[in-house]
Amino acid sequence: MASSSTQPFRVSLDAMGGDFGPSETVLGAVNAVAAGGIEVLLVGDRAEIQAEIDKHSAQDLPLTIVESENVIRDGESPLQALRAKPKASAIVGVALVKEGRADAFVSMGSTGAAMAASAFGLGMMPGIERPGLGGPMYGLAPKTTIIELGSSIDCNPTKLINFAALGVAFARTYLGVENPRVALLSVGSEDTKGNKQTKEAFPVFQESSLNFVGNVEGHDLAVNTADVIVCDGFVGNIILKAFEGIGETMSVYLKQRLSGLLSEADASAVSKDVYDLLNRTEHTGGGPLFGIKGNVIVGHGRARASGIAGAIATAKRLEELSLNAKMQDELAAIRASVAV
Amino acid sequence: MASSSTQPFRVSLDAMGGDFGPSETVLGAVNAVAAGGIEVLLVGDRAEIQAEIDKHSAQDLPLTIVESENVIRDGESPLQALRAKPKASAIVGVALVKEGRADAFVSMGSTGAAMAASAFGLGMMPGIERPGLGGPMYGLAPKTTIIELGSSIDCNPTKLINFAALGVAFARTYLGVENPRVALLSVGSEDTKGNKQTKEAFPVFQESSLNFVGNVEGHDLAVNTADVIVCDGFVGNIILKAFEGIGETMSVYLKQRLSGLLSEADASAVSKDVYDLLNRTEHTGGGPLFGIKGNVIVGHGRARASGIAGAIATAKRLEELSLNAKMQDELAAIRASVAV
Repeated sequence: MASSSTQPFRVSLDAMGGDFGPSETVLGAVNAVAAGGIEVLLVGDRAEIQAEIDKHSAQDLPLTIVESENVIRDGESPLQALRAKPKASAIVGVALVKEGRADAFVSMGSTGAAMAASAFGLGMMPGIERPGLGGPMYGLAPKTTIIELGSSIDCNPTKLINFAALGVAFARTYLGVENPRVALLSVGSEDTKGNKQTKEAFPVFQESSLNFVGNVEGHDLAVNTADVIVCDGFVGNIILKAFEGIGETMSVYLKQRLSGLLSEADASAVSKDVYDLLNRTEHTGGGPLFGIKGNVIVGHGRARASGIAGAIATAKRLEELSLNAKMQDELAAIRASVAV
Repeated sequence: MASSSTQPFRVSLDAMGGDFGPSETVLGAVNAVAAGGIEVLLVGDRAEIQAEIDKHSAQDLPLTIVESENVIRDGESPLQALRAKPKASAIVGVALVKEGRADAFVSMGSTGAAMAASAFGLGMMPGIERPGLGGPMYGLAPKTTIIELGSSIDCNPTKLINFAALGVAFARTYLGVENPRVALLSVGSEDTKGNKQTKEAFPVFQESSLNFVGNVEGHDLAVNTADVIVCDGFVGNIILKAFEGIGETMSVYLKQRLSGLLSEADASAVSKDVYDLLNRTEHTGGGPLFGIKGNVIVGHGRARASGIAGAIATAKRLEELSLNAKMQDELAAIRASVAV
């Protein structure tokens, strides 16, 4: 984790991951290092990566290839793949952080591989069983953090309050929200409304040191009624993908709806803005794996070079903010306040 | 249920319900009967309703006031309210259907009151423990039925497959989908992906006579990958309200985004279209209560006169299609195909 101001911030990047690795990942790295202060270790197939570096005449940039074998893809069982492919790019990439050769690991997927490799390689914060995903999801509610988004499918009050603590640290440190209001995502504001899981979690949240404002509902995901909205990964993942689906279909609709009213360029620009507002992770380049002892950023599989450069910049910013240490502090404080 | 072609279709309307009763409910009834073939029994406070009728000079229209006392509001416990307010508008309105004085009951809420009053007054179809809500939710996927949307919070395979059967009857009869493809809403297409509930339901759905196409994900809610998407009421309600929240915020955003590019009237029209696509139930006037032995339509609390007239028209259309009988047939057939 040593990243003093005199030496560059070192990122190990899974160059083979995502939907467009290594072409977009390498280009993303080229863009990221161009601004200075960053060095990228490109993990993957040496020949393929070198060809991409040559394509961009980037031989003189601070890019280093670290050889790996195989990639773990979406759909594979991450745990089985870790055993079957011990030299896969995700594993090698995480090992570079563990060995102190890199300050952060960045991956565009598979998310499962990045999670499993990080959990085994770097370990989890005390109380966390499985890393989580979270962050703002909707461009019109950019300071509303939703956690968890697809890793922890079935949750209990302990898991939910741990994610809340990590979300609070993220909202405070990264989004600058002073005293984040925490809410449970449910189907009514009263404490009696909800499913078994939220009804069990409600009193635990209330008893805790969290700034708990109670339950919020689906429409609150689109505004800023609460700063950290907590749900299990089943609900969170469905919502995340529903937002993306609305973004895709609505942008197509708007392009047609606006044709004749606006120039094609203007109609396309409006349509793209709407797409982006609802597909935030694709262009912001993703966010941290919550609960890992280390700086790991996972981005969207569909991310292009700009999103990948964004993810690398996010990793650097999180290091500067000491987000990981602050998450551990917040987690310890909130866990100490309740009997979990 | 006698609604021959010679006599008008008779609707009992909770004139006091919704956010804007009785002013918008009465106006909605006035609009609905104007086209002919429909008679509305306006249930509620006689003086208030009469004042609204007079306001529209609608004395000669087929509108009859049926006196009730009290209204059951959102936030009240429906079961307690049924006892405490035995002459409430929802109870009197349902009783008119039970007594054969009306062919359908229409309410803009509270939904809980309409459900409880209908369940007690008209009874549930065999196998149904609690009425459900469902239907298309998004204007860009107008033939994708989502069920359940907020009544049955914690579900099991039996409840889910019963809702699937009702959804299939609805999609086939009302939306004209010949052989509706049924899917479970989950976090991955593989049968191993999902929470405890969907994993338990998957083999039951697979074994059944449903045209089951497996799991779908959040983005499929925005398209037509499946015709009937089944989830529990917790997930469904959060999604429904999230869509509404996106509609509200996106329409405000678009009005600003388009100002300067379009005339104010054009910008407002585009903005309103986007709002409507994501707040479908508000202007279509709602849908049937699934699983009730009888024709009961529940609309959105925010519905205005046009939405209320729409709900009355929907009730008439469902009667003409014999939806209720077809739902009972479908339910029996699918329940016979599995061990539930």
